[in-house]
Amino acid sequence: MPVFQEEASPEMLNREYGILEPRLPRLTPPPPHNPSGPLSDGAKHEVVVIGTGPAGMMLSLMLTRYGVSVLAVDKQTTRVISGHADGIQPRTLEILRQLGLADEIFRQGNPNYKIAFWNPKKGGGIERTAVTNDVTVPGRYPFKILLAAGRVVGILERQMVAYGGKAKRGVEMVRFRVMEEGEFPVEVVLREVQSGRVFTVYAKHLVGADGAHSKVRAGIGGEMIGESTDYLWGVVDAVVKTDFPDIRKRCAIHSDSGSIMCIPRERIENGKYLTRLYTQMESNVASPSSAFTNSNDPEEMKKSYERALAQRREVTLPRIFDQVAKTLKPFKLEVEKVDWWGAYQIGQRVSSKFVLKDKSGYERVLIMGDACHTHSPKAGQGMNVSMMDGYNLSWKLAHEILGLCPRGSLLPTYELERADVARQLIAFDTRFAGGFSRKIGVEVTHEEFFGTFREGGGFTSGCGIEYPPSALTLPTTNPLTLPTSADTALRPGRRLFSLPATQFAGEIKTHLHDILPANGVYQLLLLLPRTFKSPQTRNSWYRREEWVGAVLPDRYGGVGDHDTADVADTTTITRGGAIVSLIYPYLLYPLPRTLHSASTGAKVEWTDFPPIWRDRWWGNVLGVGGAGGYTPWGVDPEKGAVVVVRPDGVVGGVWDADEVREGGGVEAWVEGVMGARRGGSGGRGRGRGRGEARL
Amino acid sequence: MPVFQEEASPEMLNREYGILEPRLPRLTPPPPHNPSGPLSDGAKHEVVVIGTGPAGMMLSLMLTRYGVSVLAVDKQTTRVISGHADGIQPRTLEILRQLGLADEIFRQGNPNYKIAFWNPKKGGGIERTAVTNDVTVPGRYPFKILLAAGRVVGILERQMVAYGGKAKRGVEMVRFRVMEEGEFPVEVVLREVQSGRVFTVYAKHLVGADGAHSKVRAGIGGEMIGESTDYLWGVVDAVVKTDFPDIRKRCAIHSDSGSIMCIPRERIENGKYLTRLYTQMESNVASPSSAFTNSNDPEEMKKSYERALAQRREVTLPRIFDQVAKTLKPFKLEVEKVDWWGAYQIGQRVSSKFVLKDKSGYERVLIMGDACHTHSPKAGQGMNVSMMDGYNLSWKLAHEILGLCPRGSLLPTYELERADVARQLIAFDTRFAGGFSRKIGVEVTHEEFFGTFREGGGFTSGCGIEYPPSALTLPTTNPLTLPTSADTALRPGRRLFSLPATQFAGEIKTHLHDILPANGVYQLLLLLPRTFKSPQTRNSWYRREEWVGAVLPDRYGGVGDHDTADVADTTTITRGGAIVSLIYPYLLYPLPRTLHSASTGAKVEWTDFPPIWRDRWWGNVLGVGGAGGYTPWGVDPEKGAVVVVRPDGVVGGVWDADEVREGGGVEAWVEGVMGARRGGSGGRGRGRGRGEARL
Repeated sequence: MPVFQEEASPEMLNREYGILEPRLPRLTPPPPHNPSGPLSDGAKHEVVVIGTGPAGMMLSLMLTRYGVSVLAVDKQTTRVISGHADGIQPRTLEILRQLGLADEIFRQGNPNYKIAFWNPKKGGGIERTAVTNDVTVPGRYPFKILLAAGRVVGILERQMVAYGGKAKRGVEMVRFRVMEEGEFPVEVVLREVQSGRVFTVYAKHLVGADGAHSKVRAGIGGEMIGESTDYLWGVVDAVVKTDFPDIRKRCAIHSDSGSIMCIPRERIENGKYLTRLYTQMESNVASPSSAFTNSNDPEEMKKSYERALAQRREVTLPRIFDQVAKTLKPFKLEVEKVDWWGAYQIGQRVSSKFVLKDKSGYERVLIMGDACHTHSPKAGQGMNVSMMDGYNLSWKLAHEILGLCPRGSLLPTYELERADVARQLIAFDTRFAGGFSRKIGVEVTHEEFFGTFREGGGFTSGCGIEYPPSALTLPTTNPLTLPTSADTALRPGRRLFSLPATQFAGEIKTHLHDILPANGVYQLLLLLPRTFKSPQTRNSWYRREEWVGAVLPDRYGGVGDHDTADVADTTTITRGGAIVSLIYPYLLYPLPRTLHSASTGAKVEWTDFPPIWRDRWWGNVLGVGGAGGYTPWGVDPEKGAVVVVRPDGVVGGVWDADEVREGGGVEAWVEGVMGARRGGSGGRGRGRGRGEARL
Repeated sequence: MPVFQEEASPEMLNREYGILEPRLPRLTPPPPHNPSGPLSDGAKHEVVVIGTGPAGMMLSLMLTRYGVSVLAVDKQTTRVISGHADGIQPRTLEILRQLGLADEIFRQGNPNYKIAFWNPKKGGGIERTAVTNDVTVPGRYPFKILLAAGRVVGILERQMVAYGGKAKRGVEMVRFRVMEEGEFPVEVVLREVQSGRVFTVYAKHLVGADGAHSKVRAGIGGEMIGESTDYLWGVVDAVVKTDFPDIRKRCAIHSDSGSIMCIPRERIENGKYLTRLYTQMESNVASPSSAFTNSNDPEEMKKSYERALAQRREVTLPRIFDQVAKTLKPFKLEVEKVDWWGAYQIGQRVSSKFVLKDKSGYERVLIMGDACHTHSPKAGQGMNVSMMDGYNLSWKLAHEILGLCPRGSLLPTYELERADVARQLIAFDTRFAGGFSRKIGVEVTHEEFFGTFREGGGFTSGCGIEYPPSALTLPTTNPLTLPTSADTALRPGRRLFSLPATQFAGEIKTHLHDILPANGVYQLLLLLPRTFKSPQTRNSWYRREEWVGAVLPDRYGGVGDHDTADVADTTTITRGGAIVSLIYPYLLYPLPRTLHSASTGAKVEWTDFPPIWRDRWWGNVLGVGGAGGYTPWGVDPEKGAVVVVRPDGVVGGVWDADEVREGGGVEAWVEGVMGARRGGSGGRGRGRGRGEARL
C-alpha cells in the first residue's frame, strides 16, 4: 500500500516496545524524591525489601508495576541469586501467565507431566510400581515447570527493569528500628558490601525476604519453631547418560539401598538437559544429630559439634554418586557434566512471628519466604510459597500506601493468610519427606506414600489453597447450588478457577484469566443466566448490568480523569492508560450455547447491553465454560450469580444476583475493602483528605 | 532447602537471561573483521541489506541467528518504520512461534477470528449478510493477529539485538555495482543521512528490501509490471465509539453509498483499541487517471498531471469520515482519537526481475518485499509475503555463505519460489480488491465476492502456498495412500502441517512445530507404523531407526566437535551448544494409541530404540496426531513413511520407508542439497577445502 498522503500521531513512535500495565492510582502524596540517589544517606522509600530471591523479587516487581516506590537490596554481588529451588507449580504458572511471564518460563523450563514410582523388586533391583499424573487437581496447567530459581528470578527482574525498577546488589542490612513517629518511621541501616560504606534509609515498611538466616526475622523477634530430622541428603544437578527409562519424568525411587528423587530439568547452554537427583545418604554417614550430644559440659558440646560437622563433611560428590549408583541398580548412570551439587539436612520450621507493628498497631516490618518457613525440597514448594507470599503482600501494601483502602484494613490479612499456608506446608512436608526417607515395605507401604502424594496435590499445586475467613473472604450468601469440586468452585478464599472464554464482540477465543488484568484492581463478575433476556427477567438483569457497569466503577473511580499515557522514567516503554476504577466489571454468560441463542427471545447483539458496556467495557462481555458452562464453578446456568475477585485472583465473595443493587451484599463487601474512597454523592470519591480527592 | 555444603559450575552464572539458538556451523573462512566499525569506508560484510521493514528485518534477524555477518541499513532516522501493514496471517504466526516470537505478538496484537459481510438493505441502510471464520484453511492458528507493522518490526529487532545484531538507521544507499572478481564483489555506496558522509562497503550479497520505490530494484533493471485502477481509497486508524455491532470483527461493508473494510486492531497506550477503516472515496473525488490525459503536448500533460494531483489532494480526513458515515448508515460512528490516516490508489504490480547475477551466473543482488510486488492492503498480505520473502531467502543465503551446500545450488530457488508467490498474490488481489470497489448486487454479487474470499483462503493464510518443483521439492515416491486435504498433506513444496505431539520420554504434551527448531537445519521425520515392533518388521525398523539416528546425522555432521558454549559479543546472553549435524532425525509414532500399546507384542520403553536415540535424540521420539494419527498427512498409520523438511519448514521430500537405506531416495535427496559436505568415510565430512574440514 504505497500511500500518497498520510499523517501520523506522535504517540505512534513510542509503541515499538509494547505497552505495559498502568500504575494504580495514588490518593496519597507522591513518592519521595531522592536527589542524591536511592542509596544516599537519608534516602526515603515507601518500601525497602531485603533480599531478591523469588519472594523479594516478586514483591519488588509487583510494587514497581503498581507504582509504589521500592528499594530492593541483596547482599550478593553477582546477579545470580542463592537458592536452588527448581519447581514452578500450576497455581504459580497461572499467576505468571497473568503477569505476562509464563511464556518465557515455558520457553526456558522443562514441563513435567508424570511422576513414576519405583520400588524394590523381589530378587533385587527396582521396578516401576506406578506412573501417574504429577498434577492431580484441576487447573489451567496440568504440569509443573522445572527451571533453576536463578533463571526464574532473572525473568522477574527483567520485567521489573521494563517497568522502570532495578534491584541493588551488594548491599546488606546491618540493623533496623521502628521509630515512634514520622511518615517514614522505619530506619534501616545498610552497608555496601564492597566499599564498606554504611548509610541509613527510611521507609514506610520494611520487608525481610532474606532467607533462612533472616536478619529481619531476628530483628522482629521471630524464632524458627519446629524440628530437624536425622536424615542427610545429597542433591546434584547434572547432565547424565542412563538406561533408566524414566529419567525424563519425576521419579520417587525406593530401593533396598536407599531413596532417590529425580527431576527432569531444563536445557542448558551445551544444548543438553539437566537432571536433578536427590539421594538419601546411608545412615552411617547421615546422622549428625546422633553424633551431637546435648550436654552442660562445654568441652563435650564442642566435641559433639565437631563430630556432627565431620559427619556432614562426609557428604561428598563421589559419595552422592555412589549412593545413586547403588539405589538405581540394575540401571546404569553415567555423568557427563556436574552443574551444581549440595548437601542438606531435612527439617521443617515456621517463624513464631511474621510481623512487627508500630505502637499504633500498624504493620511496619514483615517477613516472607524462607525467612518465615524452611522445609525439605521434596514437594517442590520453596520457590512457589515464597513467590506467593510476595504476591499476597504486594497488593495489600500497595493499596495501603496509595490510600486505596481504609488504613490498616488489609495488612492484618497477610499474616492470617500466609502463616496458615506456612503451617500447612510444614505439616505436608513432614509427612511427604518422611515417606521418602523411610524404607518402602518396611517402615511405610507404597500405598501410604502414594496416598500422601495424592492427598497433598491440592496444596502442592497451589490450586487447592483456601485462605481462612476474614473481611476479605467473607462467607457469603451461597448461590452454588450445583455439586462441584472444591478445587473449581467459586468459594471465598480460593483462587478463581479459570474457564475457557470467548470475547463476545470479536468472538475471540481466550481464557478467563487472560482477560482479567494483574494490575491491582478488584474484578466483579456478573454471571448472567441463560435466560437473562426472557421477558420476565429482562428488566432486572438490565438494571444489574447498568449498576455493575456504570454505577459501581464510578463510585470507586472516575471516568477519564487520568486518561493519559505515561512513559516510565528509565525506559522508552509506554505505560497503559491510567486506571480509572478500582473495580472492573465483567458480564459473563454460560457457553457452549452462544449469546445469540441464549435468550428465550430474539438474537442478542452486544449493543443490546446498556451503552456503558459498548463504550467502555466491550472487551469484558464473555462467554465462559466448556461443555458445562458455569458447572465447574457450582453455579446454575439457569440462575446466575455475582462474584468479586481480589487483585490476587482469590475469590472475595459470591452472592445471589439479587445482591447486585444499592445496599446489597456486593456493595457492603466493596464498601468494606474500598470504603475510604467513597464520596457522598454522584459516584465521586472524596479520598482520605490527604491527596487527590478523586480516584 | 538451606544447604550446608555446595559447589556450582561457573556456567550457571550466565544463564539468567536464557539460552538462544546455536549458530549454524561455518565451513568457510570466518566473517570479515572491520576494526574501524561496520560503517567505515571499505568495511566488508557478508550480506548488506537495504531497508529494515518486515522483509529486511526478518532477513537480517535470521542471518544474525544463523551466524552470518550482516549490515542492515535504513534511510529512516527514527526507530519507527514506514509501512502501515497490520495483519499477521496464520502461516506467518506458525513461523513466528518457531522463532519464539509469537507470544509477544499475541500479547501486543488483537486476534481476529471472524469476518462479517454487510450489504445494502432494501429500503436503505445496511444489513449483515454473513458471518464466517476469517481463516478458512486448517492450520495451527485459526485466526489472524492485527498489529501495526512498526510494532512487529520492533519485536523482530529486539530479538536481533539479543542475538548480538543491530540495524543501522539513518543510512541510505546511493548506488551499487557488482565487480568482476573478489570474495566481496558487491560494492555498495552508502550515505549517512544526517552528516551527509558518503562511504563504500563491500559484500558477498546485496539485498534490496527498500520498498515500492526500491533503488536496488532500479539498479538490477527491474520494472514494475502491472496496472493501477481508478479507485482512490482512504485509510484511517482511530479509536471510535459506535453502535455498529461488528466493529470488533473484520468487516466487508458494501452500501449504496460506498464500501468500507474495517479491521479490529490492537490496544494502544491510552488503554483503548484502534479500529482501522478503509473506505472507497466517491467517484467524483476518486478518479485521478480520468483527469490525466496522455498527450504529446507538454503543456497539456502538465495540466493533466496537476488535475490528477488536485483530485488526490481532495482525499482528506474529514472527507474520509464523511464517506464512512454515509456508508455505515443507519449506524453512528464517533471518533475519539485519530492515530494515523492516509490515502492510496489501488494497483497490482510485480517486478520483472528479482535477481542480478555476476558473470559466473551466481546471484549477487536480490530484492524482496514491496520492492518486488505492490498491491492493495485488502487481503492483509503485505507484511506477510514480505516477511516470508526474507524467511525463504535467509537460510539459502546462509547455507551458501557458510559453505553448507554445493555452491549455487540453493539461491536459484529463491526467485523460482517467491516470484511464483508474488504472481499469485497479484492475481488474487486484483480479484479481491476489485470486489471491494464494485457495487454489490450491481457490478458483483455478494456470492461472487464471498466466493473470492473463500477460494483465496489457502493463499491469504499462507498455509496453502505450494512451491513449484525443483531440486529442493522433488516429486517423490508417494506413500500418501489415505485421502486428505492438500492443506494438511505431506506434499513437497507445502509447509509441514503441525500436529499435536507428545514427547515420549517425559510424556510431555506439545506441538510438532514447537519441537522442530528454527536454527537452519534440515529435519528428517521417520514415521513409524503402529506395528513397527511386530516380529515380522521389528528388525527392518530397528535398522532404519539406527540409520536415521546415527549414520545420516554423522555423515552431514560430527558429534561433539563443537560442544561448547558460545557467548554473543554484545550481550550476556548465552548461545546454545553448536549444531553438530545439518540434519536432525525424529522418530514419530501415531497417536492416540500410545507407544506402550503400539506394538503387537510387549510394552515399549524409549530405551528399546537404538542407543543413539536415548543418548542423543531422546527428545525427538514423539507421538503425533489427534484422533486420527497420521491421517491429516495422508499417511497410513499401518505403513509409515519418511519425510525430509527444509529449514524453512517446507516439505522437501516424502518417501516410502524402504527408501531409508544406503543409496535410497532419502540419501539421494540429502546428497543433492548437502552433498558438498559429505566425506568419503566414517561419516566425517571433508568440507570444501577452504575452512574447517569437519562440520
